[in-house]
Amino acid sequence: MSKTVREALAQVVTARRDVRSRFLSEPLGEDLKRRLLEAAHLAPSVGLMQPWRFLWIAERDTRKRVRNLFEAANREAADSYGDERARAYSDLKLEGLLDCAINLCVLCDTRSSQGHGLGRRTWPETMQYSCVSAVQNLWLTARAEGVGVGWVSILDPVALAELLELPEGVKPVAYLCLGYVESFGDEPELQAKRWERRAPLDEYIFEERFGR
Amino acid sequence: MSKTVREALAQVVTARRDVRSRFLSEPLGEDLKRRLLEAAHLAPSVGLMQPWRFLWIAERDTRKRVRNLFEAANREAADSYGDERARAYSDLKLEGLLDCAINLCVLCDTRSSQGHGLGRRTWPETMQYSCVSAVQNLWLTARAEGVGVGWVSILDPVALAELLELPEGVKPVAYLCLGYVESFGDEPELQAKRWERRAPLDEYIFEERFGR
Repeated sequence: MSKTVREALAQVVTARRDVRSRFLSEPLGEDLKRRLLEAAHLAPSVGLMQPWRFLWIAERDTRKRVRNLFEAANREAADSYGDERARAYSDLKLEGLLDCAINLCVLCDTRSSQGHGLGRRTWPETMQYSCVSAVQNLWLTARAEGVGVGWVSILDPVALAELLELPEGVKPVAYLCLGYVESFGDEPELQAKRWERRAPLDEYIFEERFGR
Repeated sequence: MSKTVREALAQVVTARRDVRSRFLSEPLGEDLKRRLLEAAHLAPSVGLMQPWRFLWIAERDTRKRVRNLFEAANREAADSYGDERARAYSDLKLEGLLDCAINLCVLCDTRSSQGHGLGRRTWPETMQYSCVSAVQNLWLTARAEGVGVGWVSILDPVALAELLELPEGVKPVAYLCLGYVESFGDEPELQAKRWERRAPLDEYIFEERFGR
């Protein structure tokens, strides 16, 4: 593809952020929401199974109940650290569930026969992995549209599935906060807040055997 | 971002394919391989853990042994179908392990303390999910560079970990074939070969509760 396309993609990949703060409450238009899901729906999937299901959650009541799940998991997490790190942890803002415009839960319907089971017999996690690929397509597209995305993982997925009344076999893969933002950070928020730094890529590349 | 950027991203997302055939053996340059991993390394990760590890596999011997694993899993898969579908299955070409320029195994180092455990206490699969996000960044970047990527999931991940002599706690997430290609298909290969069709997006979108 052209240099313009390659540079545009690199620009989006580089500028994408996990957003937890500075969300604006302004709603997302229906056309925009559609474009985000269209990008997600073009993701690779094992055996063309397309196991992703997209659940928009706008209602305050559901979002508050999800926030309660977050609070419970977050308290336990804070308690697991020693003094200094526990204080640093408590200073982090790790979700924008109620501040953002809308929540999106990306689900995996493991019951689906689409794809006739191809490719997932020995490695069934590839069903969930397909859904994550969809999330990443959506995330990059959102960034290009100026929409922030935050992935909230500090949740008990079993409790979340109960709260959302999911049928057996339909599993949450990602719980996302979406909305316009005041601004995007220049670096990952956890790095800006000195929780952790990005590692140099070189340490993570090997040839022929792990460790080499 | 600008209309140019949004359109460029949509173009890449739409043109990305899972490639199993029409690989060229021409090697990938070191600069190109680096750009692919740089894009992967910019993926989101739980707690900034960056648990991905990239293992390039060029040696024919290792690739042949991986192909043997594929053959075993593929035979079992073929046997699991009834007559007509078994025949259709056998007609599919599902991997380019030896035809492609190089293999890349994306691993998850679950032992890493990077990120100080943030975000993965209640939902540890987010470690593997981070690695899948990295794969998708790489996949889109490869497409923009004219490089084909095929994800081989018809493998037993435990046998693969043994073959690659991975230490305990380092898990394969994706086994990829990479290389230049004669051409990219206009639609997913499994659709072109009439194994399965893409589902309409509308059926996979819900509001407030699954099924609604």
